[in-house]
Amino acid sequence: MVDIFIFSHMKKLLLLILLPILAKSQQNDSVFIKKISDEILRNGQAYQLLHHLTKNIGGRLAGSPQYNQAVQWSFETFKKLGSDNVFLQDCLVPHWVRGSGDAAFLIKKDETNTKKQLSMVAIGNSLGSQKAITAPLLYIENFDELEKRKDEVKGKIVYFNAGFDPTNIRTFKSYSESGMYRTTSASRAAKYGAVGVVIRSLSEATDNYPHTGAMRYNDSFPKIPAICVGIEDADYFAANTKTGNWVISMKTHGKMLPDTINQNVIAELKGTDFPNEYITVGGHLDSWDICEGAHDDGAGVVQTMEILRAFKALGYQPKHTIRFVLFANEENGLRGALKYADAAKENNEKHIFALESDAGGFTPRGFSFSISQEKLSTIQSWLNLLKPYGTEFLELGGGGADVGPLYRNFKTPLAGFIPDSQRYFDIHHAPSDTFEKVNKRELLLGAINMAALIYLVDKYGI
Amino acid sequence: MVDIFIFSHMKKLLLLILLPILAKSQQNDSVFIKKISDEILRNGQAYQLLHHLTKNIGGRLAGSPQYNQAVQWSFETFKKLGSDNVFLQDCLVPHWVRGSGDAAFLIKKDETNTKKQLSMVAIGNSLGSQKAITAPLLYIENFDELEKRKDEVKGKIVYFNAGFDPTNIRTFKSYSESGMYRTTSASRAAKYGAVGVVIRSLSEATDNYPHTGAMRYNDSFPKIPAICVGIEDADYFAANTKTGNWVISMKTHGKMLPDTINQNVIAELKGTDFPNEYITVGGHLDSWDICEGAHDDGAGVVQTMEILRAFKALGYQPKHTIRFVLFANEENGLRGALKYADAAKENNEKHIFALESDAGGFTPRGFSFSISQEKLSTIQSWLNLLKPYGTEFLELGGGGADVGPLYRNFKTPLAGFIPDSQRYFDIHHAPSDTFEKVNKRELLLGAINMAALIYLVDKYGI
Repeated sequence: MVDIFIFSHMKKLLLLILLPILAKSQQNDSVFIKKISDEILRNGQAYQLLHHLTKNIGGRLAGSPQYNQAVQWSFETFKKLGSDNVFLQDCLVPHWVRGSGDAAFLIKKDETNTKKQLSMVAIGNSLGSQKAITAPLLYIENFDELEKRKDEVKGKIVYFNAGFDPTNIRTFKSYSESGMYRTTSASRAAKYGAVGVVIRSLSEATDNYPHTGAMRYNDSFPKIPAICVGIEDADYFAANTKTGNWVISMKTHGKMLPDTINQNVIAELKGTDFPNEYITVGGHLDSWDICEGAHDDGAGVVQTMEILRAFKALGYQPKHTIRFVLFANEENGLRGALKYADAAKENNEKHIFALESDAGGFTPRGFSFSISQEKLSTIQSWLNLLKPYGTEFLELGGGGADVGPLYRNFKTPLAGFIPDSQRYFDIHHAPSDTFEKVNKRELLLGAINMAALIYLVDKYGI
Repeated sequence: MVDIFIFSHMKKLLLLILLPILAKSQQNDSVFIKKISDEILRNGQAYQLLHHLTKNIGGRLAGSPQYNQAVQWSFETFKKLGSDNVFLQDCLVPHWVRGSGDAAFLIKKDETNTKKQLSMVAIGNSLGSQKAITAPLLYIENFDELEKRKDEVKGKIVYFNAGFDPTNIRTFKSYSESGMYRTTSASRAAKYGAVGVVIRSLSEATDNYPHTGAMRYNDSFPKIPAICVGIEDADYFAANTKTGNWVISMKTHGKMLPDTINQNVIAELKGTDFPNEYITVGGHLDSWDICEGAHDDGAGVVQTMEILRAFKALGYQPKHTIRFVLFANEENGLRGALKYADAAKENNEKHIFALESDAGGFTPRGFSFSISQEKLSTIQSWLNLLKPYGTEFLELGGGGADVGPLYRNFKTPLAGFIPDSQRYFDIHHAPSDTFEKVNKRELLLGAINMAALIYLVDKYGI
């Protein structure tokens, strides 16, 4: 008892000595973070940079000429912003091309022969029918129903209606729950003889834009064409096509060409104390072809640039080397991220932290971490410093796709920036993901919170 | 010491007895709030109701035919939603009409005589010039500069450039800091002989829509015409008109007609235990004439309706009578709110709580309260129940304009719903405040958090 008593008192004494130091330190941090915020809100360039990326370059899928333009522009931009070093990192990427002339129609086989053109888009990586195919429609709610009705599938085009669960408050949960319909429906249906699949877009949008995204074929089954339809059309399927005789006519032109070389674009601010220890911050430079890729992930790209710009404008000299990384090929291969982590391993680099912004340029809500509970507690002691700028939680839950391989290679602590998710899947991978959907202040606030977190990690480590 | 020791142990004992009860109670609350959330996210009608209000009725300023249409529609809607009682409450409102043909031009008095048409709107309550007036421009940054240069004002049209401070994270702070430029510039400039005023819109929008709003004349000075210009035009003034000879030509047609009668629309769910104690929840039914009034305050109107709908759908029978109130004339008079509070006083009603939604239909962040610190602590014990739905703070800071008079008359505890504020002043009082700017899920999440707060107040009191 006495020992514990003394220990307890020593702890209190230590706390009494340390608290003013901690308080003073937090006060200094608070002042510097306010400087970051003021600099970015007054002079931020992220919004103007995003305008260039989305309007002058546009959609930039791996292997496309637009991706190469984006690399050139990013490289030049990083140089202009005053990086100590900018370099490109080659990686082999899949080269899927959509082709042109894709279309699909839903036809009612009765005396009217009513023909409805669908708002559709081929799913990324899918192989085109090249010629029009026409087959009876089989309306299926979900994979459970597919298994029950597998004997009815042969020769049909299967429509999958599995949509977002609207009751999830965070929409990424709904996306992760229904994502497998986009990625695996084609092969699951082909297994039972389907000749094509149509799926409800992974969205709760109130418009009719179709949402693309990546899929994978299972090599054991025929590689049938696969498309997504907009939400209004999906609601039409749900309301009308469960009964009656319906036919789908569709043609798509997707092709997978041989792998080609793309680049990660990497800028550095050299560390004063630990130049060989790296903090990575980034987003992915590629986007789907059918949109401007403004939220996904133009926002992450220009927030990354903005953090560099603000650090230079404030004369901030990091202790660790900060790497500003624009990853190649997140959308349909993740090859840029794999290359970055593998090159780091080959070069025996020490990666102490990596932060990714790939959930849209919306108003900040928090960060999620791949990290031990103990280290999370350290980070959570910074919450009050970030709260004034919109960060309300620092929680476990994963970094992001592009920083993931760093954890695999180094167990690097990871973080993902988590903006508000309500609007994200309205425009995700759809033609509606345009510059106009991004709010300037929300975009800048994201950069502020990310810059503040990097500053704290750089100063205190994890 | 002993007493304190025993007291401390008794407190612990009491806590040990109470904690499981409290925990159980919070668990039940958590289950019911999840039911509210699921009901609203699955079956919510707020978005569809907002579509009707904005697209079929539109802008609805006090005294306008559209305001009366909105009253009729709201009355019928409340009845359809199953209110125990719906009634209208007459109040006299100011009747300002904009007239038509307003325009303004900025002209450079040099050899070019360059004439730029301005994106402008007359400030609400301002009296029109009726005929075109043309006068030299005096560029003024703020009221301090006006005082310093008062001798230069006579016969001029004064342009005020005072804009939003971009470094405030919450945009309402910027609005409250610069609001007096819209409300008082005309009389302040008229005091020194100005013949008209032009002000920078109260916004940080990245477009050029002008933003109207209310103003007040000081009867001691001439009532000169007053207009706002869009942000791109304001930036043009700032970049070009500080020097050189510039002239403004403007004509406006605003008139203040005699006061007229409008109505508050009030629906009730009768309380089972305390039918004569009232909880008020509401927004304002009027809006500016130049926009659809979607965020301001169509969102508050349909969230109010949604809460009623959800309570009925869940069979929730409140202990206290809940009043769902759509206030008249918030924008340029607040007469509806004054009438509601005064009628409540005349009728000796007991008002235990009032909640207002008038900060847009954006994603929820919290609530601010006009309440004692002690009562705030009670409310803050509910934070964990609201957090899963987006509420991150319950703080002091005021209810809102329409519930304000209840505090004056009864010291009723007040709350204002605080959604994210980054986008609000982009569209506030401007033609861009349209249905399309509202996100369905964000709108519904607001209703969920408000409904949950009302449920907790109804159950536990304050």
